[in-house]
Order: sequence, then C-alpha cells, then structure tokens
Amino acid sequence: MSAPEVVATYLVESYLPLEDAAEVIAGEQSTGTFVAVARETAELRRRFAARVVSVDELPPADLTHDLPGAVRIPGARRRRGRVRISFGLDNFGPSLPNLLAAVAGNLFELRQLAGIRLLDLDLPLAFAERYPGPQYGVSGTRELLKRPDGVLLGTIVKPSIGLPVEELRIVVRELAEAGIDFIKDDELMGNPPHSPLAERVAVVSEELDKVAARTGRRPMYAFNITDDLDRMAVNHDLVRDAGGTCVMVCVNLVGLAGLAWLRQRCELPIHGHRAMTGVFTRAPGLGIDFVAWSKLARLAGADHLHTNGLSNKFYETDDEVLRSITAVQQPLFESVAPSSLPSSPYETLPVLSSGQTPGLAPETYRRTNTTDLLVLAGGGIHGHPAGPAAGVTAMRAAWHCAVNGEDITTTAATNSALLQALETFGFPHA
Amino acid sequence: MSAPEVVATYLVESYLPLEDAAEVIAGEQSTGTFVAVARETAELRRRFAARVVSVDELPPADLTHDLPGAVRIPGARRRRGRVRISFGLDNFGPSLPNLLAAVAGNLFELRQLAGIRLLDLDLPLAFAERYPGPQYGVSGTRELLKRPDGVLLGTIVKPSIGLPVEELRIVVRELAEAGIDFIKDDELMGNPPHSPLAERVAVVSEELDKVAARTGRRPMYAFNITDDLDRMAVNHDLVRDAGGTCVMVCVNLVGLAGLAWLRQRCELPIHGHRAMTGVFTRAPGLGIDFVAWSKLARLAGADHLHTNGLSNKFYETDDEVLRSITAVQQPLFESVAPSSLPSSPYETLPVLSSGQTPGLAPETYRRTNTTDLLVLAGGGIHGHPAGPAAGVTAMRAAWHCAVNGEDITTTAATNSALLQALETFGFPHA
Repeated sequence: MSAPEVVATYLVESYLPLEDAAEVIAGEQSTGTFVAVARETAELRRRFAARVVSVDELPPADLTHDLPGAVRIPGARRRRGRVRISFGLDNFGPSLPNLLAAVAGNLFELRQLAGIRLLDLDLPLAFAERYPGPQYGVSGTRELLKRPDGVLLGTIVKPSIGLPVEELRIVVRELAEAGIDFIKDDELMGNPPHSPLAERVAVVSEELDKVAARTGRRPMYAFNITDDLDRMAVNHDLVRDAGGTCVMVCVNLVGLAGLAWLRQRCELPIHGHRAMTGVFTRAPGLGIDFVAWSKLARLAGADHLHTNGLSNKFYETDDEVLRSITAVQQPLFESVAPSSLPSSPYETLPVLSSGQTPGLAPETYRRTNTTDLLVLAGGGIHGHPAGPAAGVTAMRAAWHCAVNGEDITTTAATNSALLQALETFGFPHA
Repeated sequence: MSAPEVVATYLVESYLPLEDAAEVIAGEQSTGTFVAVARETAELRRRFAARVVSVDELPPADLTHDLPGAVRIPGARRRRGRVRISFGLDNFGPSLPNLLAAVAGNLFELRQLAGIRLLDLDLPLAFAERYPGPQYGVSGTRELLKRPDGVLLGTIVKPSIGLPVEELRIVVRELAEAGIDFIKDDELMGNPPHSPLAERVAVVSEELDKVAARTGRRPMYAFNITDDLDRMAVNHDLVRDAGGTCVMVCVNLVGLAGLAWLRQRCELPIHGHRAMTGVFTRAPGLGIDFVAWSKLARLAGADHLHTNGLSNKFYETDDEVLRSITAVQQPLFESVAPSSLPSSPYETLPVLSSGQTPGLAPETYRRTNTTDLLVLAGGGIHGHPAGPAAGVTAMRAAWHCAVNGEDITTTAATNSALLQALETFGFPHA
C-alpha cells in the first residue's frame, strides 16, 4: 500500500516549459532552496520531494495577463496548463495550517510563474481522523427546522447594521410569523458597542420561542458570533444557553484554523459566511479557487457554506456559482464510501444569497435540480412593497411553482404577494 | 471630541466616476443593500453609514486590467484613484475579525469595481486597549540575544524538510558555534510524523544549552509551532518548558485571529512568517497591501515579521521590499505618542530573507540605514563552499564592512570565508 499523499491541482502559467514550472513549485514547496545544500541527499529527496503527477497544457485564456515579476524568456510564449503535484502526507501530517504551508505557501510569489492558482485538493483519509467536519449538515439542519423536504428559505436582517434591538424584535417576529425557516445577522453585525450580541440574543430568542409555542416550528437564527476566538467561544455559549439553534462564522475572518477550533467546542450548526473570499478568488491568474477553499472550510466544520446565487449582485457568473454549489455537494473524500468515514459524511448545505428574488426560483431549480439549498433573500424579502411577510410568502410560492413545474405567472394571478414581488424585482432570467 | 473611527485607504479602479465607486464601497460595507428597505432611516444612516473622506484620482497604470465581472460603461474610461473611507468604530468595535468584515469583506466582489485593493488602515487607540501587540519587539529580542547593537544574523535549517534529528543536531551545533544569532525552522517544517516537534526541541535545546554554557550567548531558535490552535498552544508550552526563546508562527495559516489568540497565552517572542501573503498581494489590482496587513499582524502580536529582502528570489522589486521594511518600522498608532499607549510601543523587528548573501549587505544597509534588522540567509549560509560555519563568518564580516563603511572586497582579501562567499554568490547589486 502506498503512503498517503495530498494531490494539489494548480492552474499554472509560465514562460518556462510547463514541466519545468511544475518542478519549480514542487521543489520550492518541499525539499528545495536556491542552491544545493549539504545533507540534501538522494534518499532525502526520494522520501520528501513533492512529485509532479501530471501536466496538461490548456489553450491560452483571454483574461489572463502576467503577474508582476514574472520572468519572461526571449522567444518563449506563455504557456498555460493544469498541473497536479503530489505531496507526501509525512511532510506535514493531517494538519490544515501545515497543509497550507505546502500547497498554498510561498509558491504564489515565485517569479518563474506568470500565473498560479490552487484549483483543487485531494486529501487522504487521515484528515478525516483529525477533523470531524460538519456536525449537522443538510439532514441535521432539516431536522432542527422540521422541514424534511423542500428548499429552505431564509433572509438577512436588514438594515445590515444599526437596527435598534426593539426594531429587530419586530422584524424577527414578522418574519417568523410569515413562516420563514432561517434568519441571519449580516456579516457586518458582530458584537458591536451599539448592539451587543447578548441583547440581540435575548430579544430574538424571546420572539422565536413565542412563535415556536404557537406554531410548533422554531425558525433558525444564525447569530454572527465572529470575533476574537475566546470571545467567539463565549458568544457561542451565549447563543446555546438561550436555546439558539445556529451560529454564523465568517470563515476567512477567523481563519480555517479558527473555524476548526470552534468546531471542537461547538454544539450548534455553523453557518459559514464567505466574506473576503473575493480577495483570493477574483484575480483569474492568482489565488485559491472556491473548489479548493470550500473543501477546507467543510473539513474545518462548516455545516452551511455561502456559494453566492444566480444573478447575484457580485462579480461571479451563473456558471461559476453553479460550479461552487456543485463543489459543496461533492463527497469530500472522493474515493471513500461515506459509511467507512470515521465520523460524518461531510455534508454541507449550500447557501445561495445576494440579489435573490422570487423570479429566480424557476431558473435556480432548473439548473441545480435540488431543494437541498438554503436560499437567502435579503432585499428580495425586506424590499417587498407589502413588507417582509409578503416577501416570505412570495418566495415560498415561487419555489413551490419551480419544484412542482407550475407556471409562476399563472400562480401570481391569484397570489398578490407573488405578483407584487415579480412586478418589483422582475425575472432576471426570463 | 469626535467618535473614534477607522479610516481605510483603497486603490480603486472603476468605469464609474470615482466618487460613485467610493460610495458603492461605503454603502455595501455599512448600511446598504441593493434595494431600499424598511427601517433604513436617515438617522440610522447618519450614525452608521461609512463616509467617503477623500478621492484622489491617479494616472492610469500600465499593469492593471479589469477584474472579471467589472461593469463597463459605454463611452466611459477606466479611472483609478486613492480613496479613503471612514467607518465608525461603533459599527464593529475594536475586534480584528469584525474590523475585517467591514474594511475587507464583500467589497472585493463588487461588480462596480474594475480594481480594488486595501492599501492602509488608520486605527483608533481602542484597538491598543484590546490587543497588547508585540511582547518583545526589537529591544526584547536584542536583550534575549545579548546583542545590543548590530544587525541580527540568522538562518533557516536546510534542507527544508526531511532532515533526521541527529543531523539537525550537527547543523545547529555548527551554526551556534559559529556565533549565529538566530536559527529557524522552515515554514514547511511544523510537527510532521517524520520529525516530531518534541524531538527537535529536545535535540536543539541540548545543543544550544551547551553553546550557551561555553560562550555565555544562547542563539535564538524559532521553532515552527504553526498547527491547529490547541496544538499550537501545546507546542508553545513544549518550547518554553525546554528553555526555548522563540516560536515561529505562519500568520496567514493560523489567521490573524489565531495569532492574537496565541499572543494571549504566549511567553516567548513570536517570529511571524508571511507564507501565503502572495495570494493577496501579488495581483496589482486586487487584494490587501503588505502595509495594511503588517499593521494587523503587529497588532495581533508579531514580534518579528518577514518583509522579504533585496534581490530576493520571489516576485517583489527592491522598492517594494523597502516599502515593506519601512511599514514595519512605522508607529502603529501614528498620532499617539508611544508613552501614552496602554502597553507596548508595537515595535516589530523586520525580517529580511530569501536569497540573502554577504554581497547584499552593503546595499541593504545603504538603503535601510539601520541595523535593527534580522537578516536570514538560508542557502547563503548552508550553500557556502566551506560549510555553514564559514557562511556565518562571511555574513558577519560583510555586515561589519557595510556598517563601518569598509570596502567588502578589501576585507575579503584577508578573510577567506568572505572571499569564498563572494566568489560563490557574487554581488547582486554591484
């Protein structure tokens, strides 16, 4: 049996032959330095050198351009390819931070590369032994919500920040009474002086308890517990002790290691927000692709993970968003049957948000072909001309149509909330 | 007295008028959403909306290009400018992760922007009350090393990974006997199965103790304790209990929040490695500049911080490196006298590394005009033809010449270690 290894897949651009560029990465990220040094024996290299597994040249891309400092070679054209490099697990052990040092450390700074992007990671099962992953996932979230099927429907409290706590109470009451499944804090709303988390938790919990007592269904509220780590743990306990059923964490802002640390202490589903992801995804020739990043966030324990939504207000195309949704739905350890995983199946719920409105439901369902989605409409619910409750009704009706193959315009003729929503927000994909 | 605020400085590129692009950022990162929502009152906006402080148009840059998804406007040219935006501290409180949500969250994904980079941050003193910053800094490091003046000279254990512990012993002994100030693990060497940290700590400490007993001077060894956070704390204790005097942390791999968390428990100087910084610094039109990032790393507690060195093997130019060194040397709270800071002066030691050799000493000293530097030569010491001890001698002699205005070639005529080094590695700046 061969020793366990991590295989990292990169998009590489270089004026060197791609095979040489791949060897530069493998050398820098394992046994190499810029000169030959004593004690770097053949035996040492055999055991510890990273190994180029494959190099597949790709056609040149329109959008790419040289990264600063890229070494040009007279007469050589820039080549672009998909490169797979294998690192022995023995080089770093099953540790997320130390894995990153090898697969995503200094290599972004190499002059030999005109473009470098980490696309994907294949991880050995040793990581599953250290990281239990999502504690609730899709099925656990559905159980807590008593929604065994259908799309899960949520919203973000708006305005993002500054809402007095007694107004928050009214917003939450209205949304909960309208039958929403999920409400979350904005990522900008943590535990600020003007609206301490403890006050928000107290007021929101009171309202949710009242609704639960009357309807038997308690919406999930994802309190943003993002903070310095010790404070984040205190925030978690505060939510748990008040009967809360979800915490939200901005994964990049506390770090993957911070998320994994929380997971060890966490008793609630973790709603993973992706704020700041754009800083390493948006430059086409540099960075870390969402596919690779989302695997690490799931391993670290994200039960829900933001993927962006169709027709969003941000830069990503629908195809890119669909690729992210698919990534989150894939098995984390591809060659391993879920039943042989040491703990969880690493099932994470994709969260679609940004610019979501009822008119997007048919296209979203057609292209994802699943209801295992948490669809968040912020402005699309709060901006409904008849208020947030009508916004919830319209979203629910739109998704009912989408899933049951009913024409949304026909339904809108007898559903004024839906009609108003479609008139206000339109059909981005019509 | 006005309420405390954070001022973030951005490089913005857009086809919108720059003032409009600045308002999009301010809106998205404080009170806005894509439609007007109930309860977003004028009073709420007055208290919580981020405010555009200044917009200074810059000439177009050669290297930049549109980020994907950037909205083009027919007839409009792309504009580029330096934009300062003020965020009330009350929006998030003095919390690093929550600060990031506002100044470095979703904004990188905005379609209205063809380029967006966080350049700098001016922080209010409230952050100093929460974050004590570096515990040792330049002066504390000098005290531990008994080197009140002169450049501090260090190296990285090479080969990067895979060295058997008994060979590590020999390397450390040789370096310590040659009078080196500082030795560090490679960032690729954490606590892997093939070379457990505990074994390395035991062997290295034994050798350093022997040298200290004989010479009265104990070199500082920065053990790489980067790991999952609870393990990182255990690693720290292991180093401390063995009499170690430094720990190394890859700041991006454990996160700024992870570093701040460690700082609260840490009794040793923290050597801050910058692996993975390139992922957010190298694309000219996207990301977070080293100037902004280094402030956060210092606040979080980095006693030493890697800045790269002149003539390095990575992509940065000498001017960029010098800008990074200067950034680390600046006061962290610019308008505040060090004596009125609640705890430390936030003094961090710049660490120059990558491709450093004796021939670079004169130019490095000429351009930095300081010896408050930790200069690390990896290959430049281990690759010396007469071995690492000669490598240390040559580096020390070269810096002596540089600081004392002596001609390095003249000195080399009577110093064979220096002569061999210059013959091997040359004068990158001659």
